[in-house]
Amino acid sequence: MIRIGIIGYGNLGKGVEYAVGKNPDMELRAVFTRRAPDSLKIMTEGVGVYPISSVKDFKDKIDVMILCGGSATDLPVQTPEFAESFNVIDSFDTHAKIPEHFANVDAASKRGGKVSLISCGWDPGMFSLNRLYASAILPDGESYTFWGKGVSQGHSDAIRRIDGVLDAKQYTIPVEEALERVRSGENPELSTREKHTRECFVVIKEGADKAKIEHEIKTMPNYFADYDTTVHFISKEELDRDHSGIPHGGFVIHAGKTGEGSKHVIEYRLKLDSNPEFTASVIAAYARAVYRLALEGQTGCRTVFDIAPAYLSVKSPEELRKTML
Amino acid sequence: MIRIGIIGYGNLGKGVEYAVGKNPDMELRAVFTRRAPDSLKIMTEGVGVYPISSVKDFKDKIDVMILCGGSATDLPVQTPEFAESFNVIDSFDTHAKIPEHFANVDAASKRGGKVSLISCGWDPGMFSLNRLYASAILPDGESYTFWGKGVSQGHSDAIRRIDGVLDAKQYTIPVEEALERVRSGENPELSTREKHTRECFVVIKEGADKAKIEHEIKTMPNYFADYDTTVHFISKEELDRDHSGIPHGGFVIHAGKTGEGSKHVIEYRLKLDSNPEFTASVIAAYARAVYRLALEGQTGCRTVFDIAPAYLSVKSPEELRKTML
Repeated sequence: MIRIGIIGYGNLGKGVEYAVGKNPDMELRAVFTRRAPDSLKIMTEGVGVYPISSVKDFKDKIDVMILCGGSATDLPVQTPEFAESFNVIDSFDTHAKIPEHFANVDAASKRGGKVSLISCGWDPGMFSLNRLYASAILPDGESYTFWGKGVSQGHSDAIRRIDGVLDAKQYTIPVEEALERVRSGENPELSTREKHTRECFVVIKEGADKAKIEHEIKTMPNYFADYDTTVHFISKEELDRDHSGIPHGGFVIHAGKTGEGSKHVIEYRLKLDSNPEFTASVIAAYARAVYRLALEGQTGCRTVFDIAPAYLSVKSPEELRKTML
Repeated sequence: MIRIGIIGYGNLGKGVEYAVGKNPDMELRAVFTRRAPDSLKIMTEGVGVYPISSVKDFKDKIDVMILCGGSATDLPVQTPEFAESFNVIDSFDTHAKIPEHFANVDAASKRGGKVSLISCGWDPGMFSLNRLYASAILPDGESYTFWGKGVSQGHSDAIRRIDGVLDAKQYTIPVEEALERVRSGENPELSTREKHTRECFVVIKEGADKAKIEHEIKTMPNYFADYDTTVHFISKEELDRDHSGIPHGGFVIHAGKTGEGSKHVIEYRLKLDSNPEFTASVIAAYARAVYRLALEGQTGCRTVFDIAPAYLSVKSPEELRKTML
């Protein structure tokens, strides 16, 4: 059994707990939290919740530690910190800072003789893999990534910070016409506005100025100014009733040419009811790979690019060749 | 430069020649054929065509030898034969015989201290990878593979063997309703007939009995009896004009559940103008991987399951993390 530890018990941590339950060769050993351990009720019977300060007491009791904090402030500190004592995985998703994070985690893992894997999930993660495979197969081609329809936590938070807003949910939606153009193999140049639209469901304080809030959302730099954005004002009851899920998904489409101009289109699509539960499921599969690499005596940091697919499966190489090839 | 050799110059061999031309780190060194070498005109200037009997004279002049023969009789003999002297790749696609073929090729590669990779292409190949990734991520789920719309060489050949038939082309077509049911996440049980239909374009000899031929096609065991099959009788001119391409493609769709019943659908789709050119492009990317494994001193047989994705790309691991993760 692969003994799993979880650091951070939000939506992702809970998703990992669910995912461990679906994998017959894994067991949850401990959950670590910054909150008061007593205040936290987890699902798995007989598994303890501990303060994050006690992580190091579990040095030989956990095979793979899964870091479920946020990419902004938690993971840049926590992953290198724990990578020296544990095999670790995180879902660090600030694309621009991946090289720096990789270097920090790699150094820590090597110091401790451990294996780590960063930026695991679906983007970065499965989408990255599909960009790599497709561009290696069809080098005379181009990859396009579309996200949605799904909830963007960052954009929802940005709306919530506006004065007069009580709560909000923002959906990122791929533009169907852009998808069709990419699928046709024409390899179009697409602006930010042409690829996605943004739809916002906003609950405001009584008496707040709707027109002003709508204007503030639509002109917000980085978040909304470059997109066609729709704003709906709804009640708190409607928001809770109709928008409480965390669906997401998207497309990686690569169109390329071979020979005398034959066109080929490779499309990978995810349609997810729960973004954190799916991310957690990807992480669980890669935890198996990390465990196996560690058994082989490997050390240092990896990404999904470095892991041979067979390491992810509970089946043996013989079984895989017989049943899945 | 990775020095590539091609054994067998049919549609696939020609596709490999095209694919080598799209990869800046590869060069074609030689083509080997069973035909009279002089009768064969290849595209790459300055590259020789040699009789297959002279392959072994090229022992140190080729980094990866690509076997482009058929799975029925060529590859079971050729791949083990050449795997002792060369790093080799083939596209062996008789799924049921993969374990036996793997064992033969693995033994030969190990005797010669070489690396080999079998069953490379899109099914087996990219479709296999997607079955593996998806089922490792969502173990509580099911994978479905659909083929088409595309030309099945085996089924076209089967029709051509019928008395009175001059020529034929057979298309395998996925049933849209079945695709939709799978995408909905209901994980249906689908019979052979429910998944695909078959459409045949047939040219017959003057005076041949259409009704008899149609009946013979539709009731042919293994090939057509289990499917809803449509037969169109057309002229040789129409066949050549409208059905000369070799398009193919298909879908791997995996639907699975997490948590308290959240549904997730992973869909991988290929839409290919030319089946052999796309297969050849996959092989070229894996030739890079085989070359790199050989440089590392590895030996023995591999499949796509055993190759870390980074090995396929011309980019360095640092570049990949920076640009594609």
